[in-house]
Amino acid sequence: MVLYRQDQLDTHTELKKRATVMKRPQSHLRNLLQKPDRLARYSAEGGGLFFDYSRQRLDDTTRQLLFDLDKKLRLRKRFEQMCAGAQLNVTEKRAVLHTACRNFGQAPILVDGKDIMPDIRRVRDQIKAFCGQIHGGQITGANGKPFRHVVVIGIGGSYLGPEFVSTALTPLADRGIALHYLANVDIDNFGAVAAAIDPPTTLWVVISKSYTTAETSANTVAAEEFMRAQGLDPAKHMVTVTSKGSPGDDPNRPVLQTFHMFDYIGGRYSVTSAVGGVPLSLFLGYDCFEAFLKGAAEMDQHALNAPVEENLPLLAALISVWNTTYLGYQQQGIIPYASPLAKLAPHVQQLNMESNGKAVDVKGKFLPEPAGMVIFGEPGTNAQHSFFQLAHQGKPFPIDFIGARKPHHPQYASRSKGVTNHQELWANLIAQAQALALGKEDKDKARYFSGNRPSSTIIMEDLGPENIGRLLSFYEARTVYEGFIWGINSFDQFGVELGKKLADGLRGHMAERNRNSNYDFGGVDSISKFYLQLLFDGTGKN
Amino acid sequence: MVLYRQDQLDTHTELKKRATVMKRPQSHLRNLLQKPDRLARYSAEGGGLFFDYSRQRLDDTTRQLLFDLDKKLRLRKRFEQMCAGAQLNVTEKRAVLHTACRNFGQAPILVDGKDIMPDIRRVRDQIKAFCGQIHGGQITGANGKPFRHVVVIGIGGSYLGPEFVSTALTPLADRGIALHYLANVDIDNFGAVAAAIDPPTTLWVVISKSYTTAETSANTVAAEEFMRAQGLDPAKHMVTVTSKGSPGDDPNRPVLQTFHMFDYIGGRYSVTSAVGGVPLSLFLGYDCFEAFLKGAAEMDQHALNAPVEENLPLLAALISVWNTTYLGYQQQGIIPYASPLAKLAPHVQQLNMESNGKAVDVKGKFLPEPAGMVIFGEPGTNAQHSFFQLAHQGKPFPIDFIGARKPHHPQYASRSKGVTNHQELWANLIAQAQALALGKEDKDKARYFSGNRPSSTIIMEDLGPENIGRLLSFYEARTVYEGFIWGINSFDQFGVELGKKLADGLRGHMAERNRNSNYDFGGVDSISKFYLQLLFDGTGKN
Repeated sequence: MVLYRQDQLDTHTELKKRATVMKRPQSHLRNLLQKPDRLARYSAEGGGLFFDYSRQRLDDTTRQLLFDLDKKLRLRKRFEQMCAGAQLNVTEKRAVLHTACRNFGQAPILVDGKDIMPDIRRVRDQIKAFCGQIHGGQITGANGKPFRHVVVIGIGGSYLGPEFVSTALTPLADRGIALHYLANVDIDNFGAVAAAIDPPTTLWVVISKSYTTAETSANTVAAEEFMRAQGLDPAKHMVTVTSKGSPGDDPNRPVLQTFHMFDYIGGRYSVTSAVGGVPLSLFLGYDCFEAFLKGAAEMDQHALNAPVEENLPLLAALISVWNTTYLGYQQQGIIPYASPLAKLAPHVQQLNMESNGKAVDVKGKFLPEPAGMVIFGEPGTNAQHSFFQLAHQGKPFPIDFIGARKPHHPQYASRSKGVTNHQELWANLIAQAQALALGKEDKDKARYFSGNRPSSTIIMEDLGPENIGRLLSFYEARTVYEGFIWGINSFDQFGVELGKKLADGLRGHMAERNRNSNYDFGGVDSISKFYLQLLFDGTGKN
Repeated sequence: MVLYRQDQLDTHTELKKRATVMKRPQSHLRNLLQKPDRLARYSAEGGGLFFDYSRQRLDDTTRQLLFDLDKKLRLRKRFEQMCAGAQLNVTEKRAVLHTACRNFGQAPILVDGKDIMPDIRRVRDQIKAFCGQIHGGQITGANGKPFRHVVVIGIGGSYLGPEFVSTALTPLADRGIALHYLANVDIDNFGAVAAAIDPPTTLWVVISKSYTTAETSANTVAAEEFMRAQGLDPAKHMVTVTSKGSPGDDPNRPVLQTFHMFDYIGGRYSVTSAVGGVPLSLFLGYDCFEAFLKGAAEMDQHALNAPVEENLPLLAALISVWNTTYLGYQQQGIIPYASPLAKLAPHVQQLNMESNGKAVDVKGKFLPEPAGMVIFGEPGTNAQHSFFQLAHQGKPFPIDFIGARKPHHPQYASRSKGVTNHQELWANLIAQAQALALGKEDKDKARYFSGNRPSSTIIMEDLGPENIGRLLSFYEARTVYEGFIWGINSFDQFGVELGKKLADGLRGHMAERNRNSNYDFGGVDSISKFYLQLLFDGTGKN
């Protein structure tokens, strides 16, 4: 039998034993950090980023056990198979090829015997050409005015990745285009967007692989009615990003252009495909998007090729599993000391929790306990003034700190207390990881800090598109490596099906009631019926 | 000895035993929900909100034990003492009187023998008068132009509460004023705000109780330099919200007006004080702010007077403690099916985690284990397309679902699949709680849902200011009640001190280096030194 899950290995038993050692007082980070070469020996640089894991609760023995996991599970081999088109999404029988989206090499990548790279290149070329024509004013709205607003209609993977990247790079947006997201089916999301745009100069980008997502369909209908009410032809104000042959790629429903997405790219991994490519290129220019892709590609190569000792996402994944499965932490904080990264945590929240929040392995067997962890975070220093009380004195959770050596806005250089704002930001970045790790004795227990709270620190040179691409790919590869270690399929999401199915049923009852105001929701369970009556009649019977 | 912590009571032992019963298969929510009157018996209405806890893992016996906790700990009595000015913030020797901010009664509230209500009323009157003059154009910027932008400089409690409320009520903002927040010391936060405003028509509202918060000081310096660079007099473009006699209330540093805040109102509980009052009244009008206060006051009265069986925040707090301390959940999701409530979770994240993420009780003794829980959330349906995979099939966590019967924007009524967007939203709201609770059998383990995942559902009639006030007060009172049960001081935050102190030290070294470029960071620990060199020189030695 080929062993494919970390808990099937002898190393698993050794790691469990090791966890008891690492929980002893002498293994406190305060002691581990006393070694003068701790940082040099527990940090790595590669793919354009610096990764410091000196404040993780690891010693040499533990780390070696994690490296043994890597070796026995042949993790980089699996990553290589992924990048080469193997059908790693076993339940849905699909290849997993988000890395192909930022591949600028010449070699073919075969899926079912067919090279997919020409499709990838064609879509990139289409994005470049289309956005060039939008920015140049050759393509305009129905009234001949250049486009000034782009509204992205999409949810989940069609929203969170583009939002992360566009937020990070907003200071570079120089095309005179404002970008808006219409994700939630909530009509108040639509209302907020409708109030913020100028309809004659607005281009709507509808993103849905199947083009049947309930939220996206509803918002598209609302957008089309809104345009018609303004006397605008939706066909002149809309593009679609969807699968070939979907209802969004139908000559009978004309749009300005359709960009294809492919079933070997999952939604939460899709920001480097046309899903991100179209809105980001409209907002930032195609060149900026391509620089972002090239950064991601650099980290992909690093994730694929660097030995485990130097491999940032692989190290980070091994540490995640150590923290979660062996030390028992259930959360992971993501705290960028860079406000442009404000949407990193929501993106990784989806990327990681939807990928790895799983109870079964790739063979369809239950895991000993569900995999995954809760991911959450806010930028520092904001987070310090929010939930860091609990981080320092409540139940501990591991944190990724992220810093950028150079901010987007170096032109404001005022000083307060002798330092610039950017220096103040770094003083806090440095201080927090140290305070969490070391703690502080105090006879007053309210002022006692237990310390031994683990964190990693990731440093990037600046917040340019290359580094945003590297950071994106780092978190993607880390998520994938975690999944490989736990032996799960990080690429399906059957956990969202039950709620969808129940909502489908309720929608049917609502539609019936819309047709027939006497409809009494017969056959609906009593609690759901109560809420349906409450919504329609203002009062439910319970 | 007066017992003041739930784990000192016999009921604690009984609850621990009860938890083992409730973890048995026969106690699965699927079974509990079979009783036809489950919803009627496990829901309550009061303070203007409806609270359904039928999908919490409670039966009559367990609930009765929780009611016993309430009785023995005399929780409402403590709440009454809080509202009457008792010094419940024992470590800082302060009363806890955020409820006074929305008190419109005539009775005095005494702190150290002095009635504080005249101060409260005076500040409210000042806010009303000042905002009236801004909106009427009697107070303008240095160039005589009416104000069109308000920038709030403040962090933590001076930011998250106002941001939650202003986001929720944005569709009601009719004063022609755009509201911006400058919280993070990150210069990119400043840069983003600077790019979004029109300086001659911008009013800066600096909020800091001590007026010494590092971030707020740095941002105020940056704002003042920015104004001067534009030829504008900061004194004509700034108001302060601060303690009487602080550096922000200094006649030698003139501003348009200073509004006082008081030491009996903690930052995270301060949105109904001038902290929220000034920016929200500028943005929405004072009347809207007052309606918000009155909603909060209604829930305060409910929290104070309703018997435990009907008391929403008290029930919710008992359930929190049951879920955390007895069932072992470590997180709490907050999922409003209302996109205007997008900033509720970040606000409650601070409110609750900073209040209750504590390791010591009110007497300064260590708790058996730290109190509190990780709070996180995003609006539904967005959350369904993000982390609900883990919520359904990963390690479970309790969720608060929140719905509003009426959206802000009823004018858009297009239908997709036979239902409006708002109906679609509700179909999902109803479906998710049910799917989590019931689960679904399936031979294919990847499509199996274990269910038994607890949630509550809170329903409000609409998203008007009264209901936002009720919701705010609900979460405040719930947080306070949780703290009473755990026997902790929910009103101090010594956990943030160590990081601040270490940052102070590092700032000193940075300032020295700014003065002397040869300064070599002597005496700094090796890891911090590495990061300081990296920041200043582009490369660190490790």
